[in-house]
Amino acid sequence: MSKKILFPQIKGLLHGSDYNPDQWLDRPDILEKDIELMKKAKMTSMSVGIFAWAAYEPSEGEFHMDWLKNIMDKLYENGIYTILATPSGARPAWLDEKYPECMRVNADDHRAHHGFRHNHCMSSPKFREKTGIIINKIIDTVGDHPGLAMWHISNEFGGECFCPLCKKKFQDYLADKFDHDINKLNKAWWTSFWSHTYNNFSQIEPPYANGEFSIMGLNLEWKRFTTWNTTDYMKSEIEILKRRTPNIPVTTNFMQLFPGLDYRVMAKELDVISWDSYPFFHNNYETFADTMARSSFDHAVMRSMKKDQPYMLMESAPGLANWHRYNKLKRPGVHKLFSAQAVGCGSDTVQYFQWRKSRGAFEQFHGAVVDHLGTDDTRIFKEVAKVGEMLDNLSKVKGTLVKPKAALLFDWDNMWAIENMRGLSDETKNYPQTCADIYHEFLKLGIDMNVVASDDNLDDYNVVVAPMLYMLRPGAADNLKKFVKRGGQLLATYLTGYVDDNTLCFLGGFPGNGLSELFGLISEEIDTLYDCDINSATFTNGNKAKIRDYAEILRVSDADVIARYDSDFYAGTPVVTRKTYGDGKSYYVAARLDMNAMSELFKTMLEETETPYYVLPDGIEYHKREDETGDTIEFYLNVTDKELSFSTISGDKLTLEPYGVKIF
Amino acid sequence: MSKKILFPQIKGLLHGSDYNPDQWLDRPDILEKDIELMKKAKMTSMSVGIFAWAAYEPSEGEFHMDWLKNIMDKLYENGIYTILATPSGARPAWLDEKYPECMRVNADDHRAHHGFRHNHCMSSPKFREKTGIIINKIIDTVGDHPGLAMWHISNEFGGECFCPLCKKKFQDYLADKFDHDINKLNKAWWTSFWSHTYNNFSQIEPPYANGEFSIMGLNLEWKRFTTWNTTDYMKSEIEILKRRTPNIPVTTNFMQLFPGLDYRVMAKELDVISWDSYPFFHNNYETFADTMARSSFDHAVMRSMKKDQPYMLMESAPGLANWHRYNKLKRPGVHKLFSAQAVGCGSDTVQYFQWRKSRGAFEQFHGAVVDHLGTDDTRIFKEVAKVGEMLDNLSKVKGTLVKPKAALLFDWDNMWAIENMRGLSDETKNYPQTCADIYHEFLKLGIDMNVVASDDNLDDYNVVVAPMLYMLRPGAADNLKKFVKRGGQLLATYLTGYVDDNTLCFLGGFPGNGLSELFGLISEEIDTLYDCDINSATFTNGNKAKIRDYAEILRVSDADVIARYDSDFYAGTPVVTRKTYGDGKSYYVAARLDMNAMSELFKTMLEETETPYYVLPDGIEYHKREDETGDTIEFYLNVTDKELSFSTISGDKLTLEPYGVKIF
Amino acid sequence: MSKKILFPQIKGLLHGSDYNPDQWLDRPDILEKDIELMKKAKMTSMSVGIFAWAAYEPSEGEFHMDWLKNIMDKLYENGIYTILATPSGARPAWLDEKYPECMRVNADDHRAHHGFRHNHCMSSPKFREKTGIIINKIIDTVGDHPGLAMWHISNEFGGECFCPLCKKKFQDYLADKFDHDINKLNKAWWTSFWSHTYNNFSQIEPPYANGEFSIMGLNLEWKRFTTWNTTDYMKSEIEILKRRTPNIPVTTNFMQLFPGLDYRVMAKELDVISWDSYPFFHNNYETFADTMARSSFDHAVMRSMKKDQPYMLMESAPGLANWHRYNKLKRPGVHKLFSAQAVGCGSDTVQYFQWRKSRGAFEQFHGAVVDHLGTDDTRIFKEVAKVGEMLDNLSKVKGTLVKPKAALLFDWDNMWAIENMRGLSDETKNYPQTCADIYHEFLKLGIDMNVVASDDNLDDYNVVVAPMLYMLRPGAADNLKKFVKRGGQLLATYLTGYVDDNTLCFLGGFPGNGLSELFGLISEEIDTLYDCDINSATFTNGNKAKIRDYAEILRVSDADVIARYDSDFYAGTPVVTRKTYGDGKSYYVAARLDMNAMSELFKTMLEETETPYYVLPDGIEYHKREDETGDTIEFYLNVTDKELSFSTISGDKLTLEPYGVKIF
Repeated sequence: MSKKILFPQIKGLLHGSDYNPDQWLDRPDILEKDIELMKKAKMTSMSVGIFAWAAYEPSEGEFHMDWLKNIMDKLYENGIYTILATPSGARPAWLDEKYPECMRVNADDHRAHHGFRHNHCMSSPKFREKTGIIINKIIDTVGDHPGLAMWHISNEFGGECFCPLCKKKFQDYLADKFDHDINKLNKAWWTSFWSHTYNNFSQIEPPYANGEFSIMGLNLEWKRFTTWNTTDYMKSEIEILKRRTPNIPVTTNFMQLFPGLDYRVMAKELDVISWDSYPFFHNNYETFADTMARSSFDHAVMRSMKKDQPYMLMESAPGLANWHRYNKLKRPGVHKLFSAQAVGCGSDTVQYFQWRKSRGAFEQFHGAVVDHLGTDDTRIFKEVAKVGEMLDNLSKVKGTLVKPKAALLFDWDNMWAIENMRGLSDETKNYPQTCADIYHEFLKLGIDMNVVASDDNLDDYNVVVAPMLYMLRPGAADNLKKFVKRGGQLLATYLTGYVDDNTLCFLGGFPGNGLSELFGLISEEIDTLYDCDINSATFTNGNKAKIRDYAEILRVSDADVIARYDSDFYAGTPVVTRKTYGDGKSYYVAARLDMNAMSELFKTMLEETETPYYVLPDGIEYHKREDETGDTIEFYLNVTDKELSFSTISGDKLTLEPYGVKIF
Repeated sequence: MSKKILFPQIKGLLHGSDYNPDQWLDRPDILEKDIELMKKAKMTSMSVGIFAWAAYEPSEGEFHMDWLKNIMDKLYENGIYTILATPSGARPAWLDEKYPECMRVNADDHRAHHGFRHNHCMSSPKFREKTGIIINKIIDTVGDHPGLAMWHISNEFGGECFCPLCKKKFQDYLADKFDHDINKLNKAWWTSFWSHTYNNFSQIEPPYANGEFSIMGLNLEWKRFTTWNTTDYMKSEIEILKRRTPNIPVTTNFMQLFPGLDYRVMAKELDVISWDSYPFFHNNYETFADTMARSSFDHAVMRSMKKDQPYMLMESAPGLANWHRYNKLKRPGVHKLFSAQAVGCGSDTVQYFQWRKSRGAFEQFHGAVVDHLGTDDTRIFKEVAKVGEMLDNLSKVKGTLVKPKAALLFDWDNMWAIENMRGLSDETKNYPQTCADIYHEFLKLGIDMNVVASDDNLDDYNVVVAPMLYMLRPGAADNLKKFVKRGGQLLATYLTGYVDDNTLCFLGGFPGNGLSELFGLISEEIDTLYDCDINSATFTNGNKAKIRDYAEILRVSDADVIARYDSDFYAGTPVVTRKTYGDGKSYYVAARLDMNAMSELFKTMLEETETPYYVLPDGIEYHKREDETGDTIEFYLNVTDKELSFSTISGDKLTLEPYGVKIF
Repeated sequence: MSKKILFPQIKGLLHGSDYNPDQWLDRPDILEKDIELMKKAKMTSMSVGIFAWAAYEPSEGEFHMDWLKNIMDKLYENGIYTILATPSGARPAWLDEKYPECMRVNADDHRAHHGFRHNHCMSSPKFREKTGIIINKIIDTVGDHPGLAMWHISNEFGGECFCPLCKKKFQDYLADKFDHDINKLNKAWWTSFWSHTYNNFSQIEPPYANGEFSIMGLNLEWKRFTTWNTTDYMKSEIEILKRRTPNIPVTTNFMQLFPGLDYRVMAKELDVISWDSYPFFHNNYETFADTMARSSFDHAVMRSMKKDQPYMLMESAPGLANWHRYNKLKRPGVHKLFSAQAVGCGSDTVQYFQWRKSRGAFEQFHGAVVDHLGTDDTRIFKEVAKVGEMLDNLSKVKGTLVKPKAALLFDWDNMWAIENMRGLSDETKNYPQTCADIYHEFLKLGIDMNVVASDDNLDDYNVVVAPMLYMLRPGAADNLKKFVKRGGQLLATYLTGYVDDNTLCFLGGFPGNGLSELFGLISEEIDTLYDCDINSATFTNGNKAKIRDYAEILRVSDADVIARYDSDFYAGTPVVTRKTYGDGKSYYVAARLDMNAMSELFKTMLEETETPYYVLPDGIEYHKREDETGDTIEFYLNVTDKELSFSTISGDKLTLEPYGVKIF
């Protein structure tokens, strides 16, 4: 596969920012000053027009597009490319006033009032008509502008709508899904429970706050529908862009493991993945290294959606955010460290929200490259300029890839199903955190993991960890069996294979759908532990592991028991098993073990597949990118506020200043 | 009085379960398997049809009743009786679609959407018409079935409705109650406060969330009305059943001290009391013995509603629940222990929710006798079968009674009035827990208490404890005086006799309505203590007691002071008094003393009336049932996870394994 | 200026209470008893008719006014004056039934049901018409009554309404404010952010719960509008009263730093300030002295609104409240202590809610002079009578004033702006508490502070502290400069001068609007600290100060650095500065220092202006009133439960019993 270069027109890695000149059109002096400062900060791109609808179309049918062309001209003349947004992130007041059907209806069945952003009805034909008009106007104006580098669709999609249009669309979606056979749906959702049988699709409603919430299949499908409908809307924008500017790539900006949308479904419609990152740096509940590891995990989620090409860090805060519980300043050096991590994880850009702080309204105190002070001598500006310098010198990195040999299985709909599952304890389910913790253990071994869907192709991987795979999508069980059969090392945990993709329980023993054969066991019961409940496991090699939250009681029929419970009425029964299956091995970890114990299992799995790993010194994070020739660029990050000296993987001595970075 | 046998057709004590064959009608293999497993578990009864309306009547007027007859036939052929539910626990979708007036209006004045269960408007004529039709169809089908052992009315009644029909009915109810004289109501509710005087009954609304909440009399009467209206609905079902099947007893399933309904009002309409018990076993905030004691208290509440006959444990979880904060497994042996407690407290049945786990929807992970695994070799199944064995051998117990000599006074409307009272601290009122704690102290003395209303006949009792009797129902004060006068020992506490049954304060000193004469004192002030406020009492015999939460300052005119405050500005003033009144004694405990100190008072009261008690070893719970000849069956329960050896009340040595049970 | 005597017709200081004879009209014996008890308690005033509308007008147009005249006659005959309320605190049921537009619409856009109180639409013409009628009837009845001492307008104004009338009025208010130029508003509110530009005023809505909340200017203006509209309503009542009874003064009762209304705007329309005080005495989170200090701060807020005349303590609880989290009894002596504090702070009255406890409804357990018991021998009654005695002997105090030389700047709209500001941490902003803490430090130095607006005349003061002056109202910056220039000592803190009065950020550096010149510095960044973040400052004199919550990083251009940070990346940079400006000095404290360190600064500022202070012994609170000749009355309060002996400011030995009071 040949290297994919996202921005060939830019020399180094793209250095960009959201930019809102539409807020300063009456201040040409400030717009002038912006260009001067951008060049000082080595900016190579600006994301323009993200909420500019009212600036383009101040009243219905009255268009003011010139300023956009002027801005893009000026940027281009100064070597700065434009990532141009469709302005559908927020609606003008006139539009809501005239077409209230564009505003969402909330779960309590009341239509929202005009305000805020990102709260459109994705089903509304009028909203689509109006966004279509303005997008076409934008294309008319600058569709062929040489500075136009990419389309940025709307902004941070999210949210649900319970309006009559959406209800009807949901019903139609369900009819399609269940072959217009209401009894198929009734069986799939087990509606005979509590007399919930439907006679026809028109009886089905979204899960209103004071409506139906007791059918897990309905709840899950509503979430899938919301993804489907949001994607459907997004495609309506893409269709126009692709038709008229087929050579301009499109993206939209994601947000971590956003719980509202299955990004993988949306990713299929995009040319490039991009996302917005706002870690809670320097917080009071975890180490800085933990915060960085979670950030790295989020990068891995994004990277894995299009693993054969780089992705983009579309937004990040140059200084601080304004919506965190505590909006703490990023310490000196952290901005560069954070930027280097992004690149190390596979991003080919570092971008910000925002270029210049707005004077008023909701985000006037959100960090920006240029403060209300307006000068280039602030700490933040200087740190940004330093990153600009770094990126400018990393042209060699462009298009190189992170190529993990380990993968973590994570399904969005599994997350939804687990959250909605009535049982266990809502306080301790923690599926996403469990995934991130496992990722962190591999990171400490110098191993980047991809984060993939349970039905993704697993051929590239030696080791796969599938925590809490409660719901088995069609094909998932076979996929896992195939992976192990051909020599892979698979580890699954408590809560594996309880339900199918409609959340119907498998009969005949968990893990279902054939997985009990893969692991050689059945889980008979699952115990939910209070915080004060103490248990542990002893491995056959004498190692110990603490246990908390969950503990399954197993019937092992065909697997080696490698650890047993120490306490409680299931003391002595198996808690960790291993089975050879085909050319690989399957591990089953029946309880929530401490991560040290998990790491020992991961090391064994890596060793068995001869996957090299390296136990990094405490406080050091490591990433590696490769080009198509196998040449590598290595990233060493000091994720502490202390100076650290250590040996690199290749054995060299290296000293990193606090929050220091070294790129080889 | 002759012994009342609830189920003469069954040899031992009834062993039953909720059973939902309507969820598996397309799986005859499973229905077949069910019968086989039921016999293995020694089940003698199944509760059928609880949410089967959609199975009976899949669309309006289309009836499918055959499956019911087939199932009951098959059960009966295999020696299993049917407790048959009316299906009004949940409405079919078609009914809500066509008759939305059957759906409730919430406190925020919005009608609910279709969904969930137990949420019908009890006032709706249409709902009554439709339930009438389906109940008649059921009777047509199996009203004369030899397997039909009992009617189970609807399921777990509860909840309120604020619809126009209910509003009107509430107004009519009030007009009746206050003799169609609005000024009577105005005086009773003291509506002159804040200018709340009503001109006519049509101005009165239910306490909407954004409506009137400042009239305590209204709030209380709304709760009484909800009980009245729910009972009125329930009677509409009973009327049909009694008319057509006069020999089949009726019950409905209660839920502990459910705060929404005064069960004593409903109990009058039922032949048998039954209830659903789901203790939070093995939790992190109390000992296991405490959990069991609370469970025993709940049994006592149920038993006392019809104290001259046994009651039924209609539901319990064989394994775990799925709606607890932590859904922890019941430890081995606990199921038998819990079942034996039920019988020891006076239940003649042990029944479960549910026979077989549903594959999907809200309760798919709720414990059941038969798991998704589907076999008879699970731990849970085996524990259930063991209980089946035990019950089968307890035919001697049938119809025997628990006959307490001590009673605890508890009024539902007193609970409502205390909760709604503006004063003290909402964080520490804890009326129900205070009652349960007192019950527990008697339990430790080997004494079963009944839990009775303040205006119940008290002739059977030697000792009566009336904690926090804030509201005096008509007749309550005289009832207490009569009890003491004829030789009873009565103990009351702080917060006694503040208001009448409309929550109007008594003038002239608390406790009002003549009770200050019974106790020989007036309570002048009540202090509410923060957690950090430390006080204590010293008894004349030198004993000490800790005090928390509440402390009244007394004026004692005619009683012996047996304890005084140690601290604060009321140090040295009386806190516990005793007065001889007629042939009995009245105690007043003016502060919330620790339960050890209370227990000493209880012992004195028992001794004075020559009521035998026995200080049980720690960890042992004891119950006794008697037949009409005075023969007794004794139950010793080890409510710890340790083996315990001790002397029984009759002086025999007994060793009980962890969670062990011995029935003599 | 000549002394203003609020109640020349009363000999001592007024001793009064809310009185609701309308609740007892059918009990003449109780009304008779009331008079007898009032005289025993030395009451000189009763506040009558506060919620008496339904008693005056039981149905529309039917008036029963005689009882009012009879009561006022009887009171007057017994030497008791009447403060007569307009009855608009609560509406009769018939009014809501017939004119639902008088009921408010909540933030969720639903109209409230009838109930509670203080929940009228202030815009409703019908409500104004109806209150106008009843007020005129009252004047007809007793407008010339010799016992009528004052008008008490409605009761405890508060709350918002989102009805169509209020929406329209808000739009009109905005049009007026912004010269009917929507673009002025757009610029002032920075609506270009997120495409929120308005085309006309009719598009602007109040901040509905599910509406616009992202425009800080809108949110702030809505709060200002609510004050404006409430005042507009209040003026509609005052207009009638002043027209017909021009010699009767008017007041309304305020509530501390009530967050819903800018009392200073309302104060302009009143003759006298009065307020309701319900401190959480003896709580579990602060010392008793802290509770008293906060109470004193609240008094200062009230006093400062009309600093050239006394104010009134309109309500307080004789015993306990009934709406606190814990309704604890006031310890013996506290009532007198609290009353003396009120007088020491400048109140010429001590008044209660309520005279006699109501028998039912929301406040039946709220403390009162006369309990349900109904006698004069209760602890509470006796403590009240003792205060009556004290007030009767304080005639010398009447009309004297507290004349502080120090002032604290506090703006209501600054409070609103800070609360609504997106940034920092919502958990630690604590603007009002920070003000109260500073006030407390001066109190410990024997200094009463006034609490004034940032644009108030500051000529009377030597020292001004302006904490967290985030928003600069027009004129505020010049006012501060003028104050320092003429020799004043000014101290400002972190978060000064960020935004203008529309919440637009100042460009060119904070503090803006010229204040960076006054302080000789710019604040470049503000760091928000977690609880666990430790920092401190070292002063040039070696003193240390702890730092928490907030820390700004400064660029000092023209000021002396008198303290520097000890830790973090800004260690060694300035945290406290001082600049000589004109004849005065300006201090800037860039971080939240502990109050001990702040107190040292305050002492220096007092010394530099030769303002005498005295470090009071722990547990002693001190206030001073002066008459126009300079004669003083001094108040020493023991705010502990221990006896304290100490030297007074004049050097005399004084011993105060627990909660003791000495007035010289």
